[in-house]
Amino acid sequence: MELWFTELQNRNLKITTRVEETLYHAKSPYQEVLVVKTSQFGNMLALDDIIQTTEADEFVYHELIAHVPMMTHPNPRKVLVIGGGDGGTVREVLKHPGVEMVHLVEIDEEVVKASREFLPITSSKLDDPRVTVMNVDGLKYVEETDEHYDVVIVDSSDPVGPGVGLFGLPFYEGVADILTEDGILVAQTESPFYNQSLLQSCYSNIGKALGQAWVYWGVVPTYPSGFWTFTMGSKKHNPIEVKDERLSIAKGWDLKWYTPSVHKSSFVLPAFVESLLKETENK
Amino acid sequence: MELWFTELQNRNLKITTRVEETLYHAKSPYQEVLVVKTSQFGNMLALDDIIQTTEADEFVYHELIAHVPMMTHPNPRKVLVIGGGDGGTVREVLKHPGVEMVHLVEIDEEVVKASREFLPITSSKLDDPRVTVMNVDGLKYVEETDEHYDVVIVDSSDPVGPGVGLFGLPFYEGVADILTEDGILVAQTESPFYNQSLLQSCYSNIGKALGQAWVYWGVVPTYPSGFWTFTMGSKKHNPIEVKDERLSIAKGWDLKWYTPSVHKSSFVLPAFVESLLKETENK
Repeated sequence: MELWFTELQNRNLKITTRVEETLYHAKSPYQEVLVVKTSQFGNMLALDDIIQTTEADEFVYHELIAHVPMMTHPNPRKVLVIGGGDGGTVREVLKHPGVEMVHLVEIDEEVVKASREFLPITSSKLDDPRVTVMNVDGLKYVEETDEHYDVVIVDSSDPVGPGVGLFGLPFYEGVADILTEDGILVAQTESPFYNQSLLQSCYSNIGKALGQAWVYWGVVPTYPSGFWTFTMGSKKHNPIEVKDERLSIAKGWDLKWYTPSVHKSSFVLPAFVESLLKETENK
Repeated sequence: MELWFTELQNRNLKITTRVEETLYHAKSPYQEVLVVKTSQFGNMLALDDIIQTTEADEFVYHELIAHVPMMTHPNPRKVLVIGGGDGGTVREVLKHPGVEMVHLVEIDEEVVKASREFLPITSSKLDDPRVTVMNVDGLKYVEETDEHYDVVIVDSSDPVGPGVGLFGLPFYEGVADILTEDGILVAQTESPFYNQSLLQSCYSNIGKALGQAWVYWGVVPTYPSGFWTFTMGSKKHNPIEVKDERLSIAKGWDLKWYTPSVHKSSFVLPAFVESLLKETENK
């Protein structure tokens, strides 16, 4: 059957993958939610025709966005995930034995519903008793909550549609306010091949809001260019100086990307990305 | 203008990029040679409709395939590049001041011709007096030459068409025979996301032919999955133990991917790639 899903990654570039079946299609108040079964990547979730996660490569993104900050904090107990309605980040966060409470603030309940039904491995820990799912606006939640968190993970969609406010300085400053005094923020910050100014502004803004920022990266084949960055802001703990003993708690966990060595090498940036960040520092 | 180039990366996956102009199109005895001007990647060379190199991202591949082995060898003077008719690998090799002689063995003179005309930066060093271009079959050349090389770089196309013999054990054994006693072989070995068995067999075969093998990687957005591997076989020198002092000779070179830190972090493999290679070792 010649059924294909195409994402227009930008006006000059497309990724196209063969579809075996459409599994879920809904229009929420926020966006169009689509799950298709693909031949290459297994089940795939798209929001407004932009690929969010696939069964085949979700492990890269979820392991990196969760374990790098969670290992950098010496004892994360309270965690907030903003976005991330597919549940993959929550699943990874819960591998850390000290976690007492995970709040998942996903604006769109359709995303959670579609993921529970058609991304069963990704969403497998959403019913863990430590998890509370709230379908509210992350921006508003950060403004209004009285809670404080050790780690806040901004697992947003692209800076268009409902995700756009989650890339600005006011939001990061809001997150800084609801972090504990040694708290850590991490956000997905797109590709330096195609979205350089976004990475630069996130790096600059997170640095301003938290005091210090670091960029790390991995490869997600279904995201534009494959090269995907995360930017971490930390009030106290340095992600590069985490002790090997701390990192070794991951031994025996079911991981396909993250290792103690990967934790550190993920912060080694190619020359052109280093230059991009240096430009920002000199502004 | 809605003119697009599409590569069918496999039967379930396509990459499509907007074309502004067709610059070169020829049928050689070996393959179809096409250069198009794209909006996203600048000029792009495709052989039999498979993207080989683009002006926008060629630096990743060429810097990694050249500098990692060239730095690992303490004093590379004689270098053989097999394939690589676009000239990008030769350009990087010549940044090493001790190089006396580079032989480029590219089977298809149409590739060299198209690159000289439409990839001027990539091919810019093909007329350096230290370079000899030979349009002969790499397999045959390795069998028949009496020359010996410090570094042999297999800069081949995919394991289909004219490139297929360049991925087998007999070829790697032939390369081992024309290396000096502390010589180094490196080959491009595709993506572990989509082409796992090829990476495994190359790793195993290069290990058998040279005595020891290492896999390292980078991200080339126009190659399938973005995640691209290189496998190095070395008779004597260990790429991970190269001294910082040696790596520092690259200071001031015009590089966009490779740095001394990247040299080492490129050998840190994600967990699933480590597992793939371990499977091979246990066979």
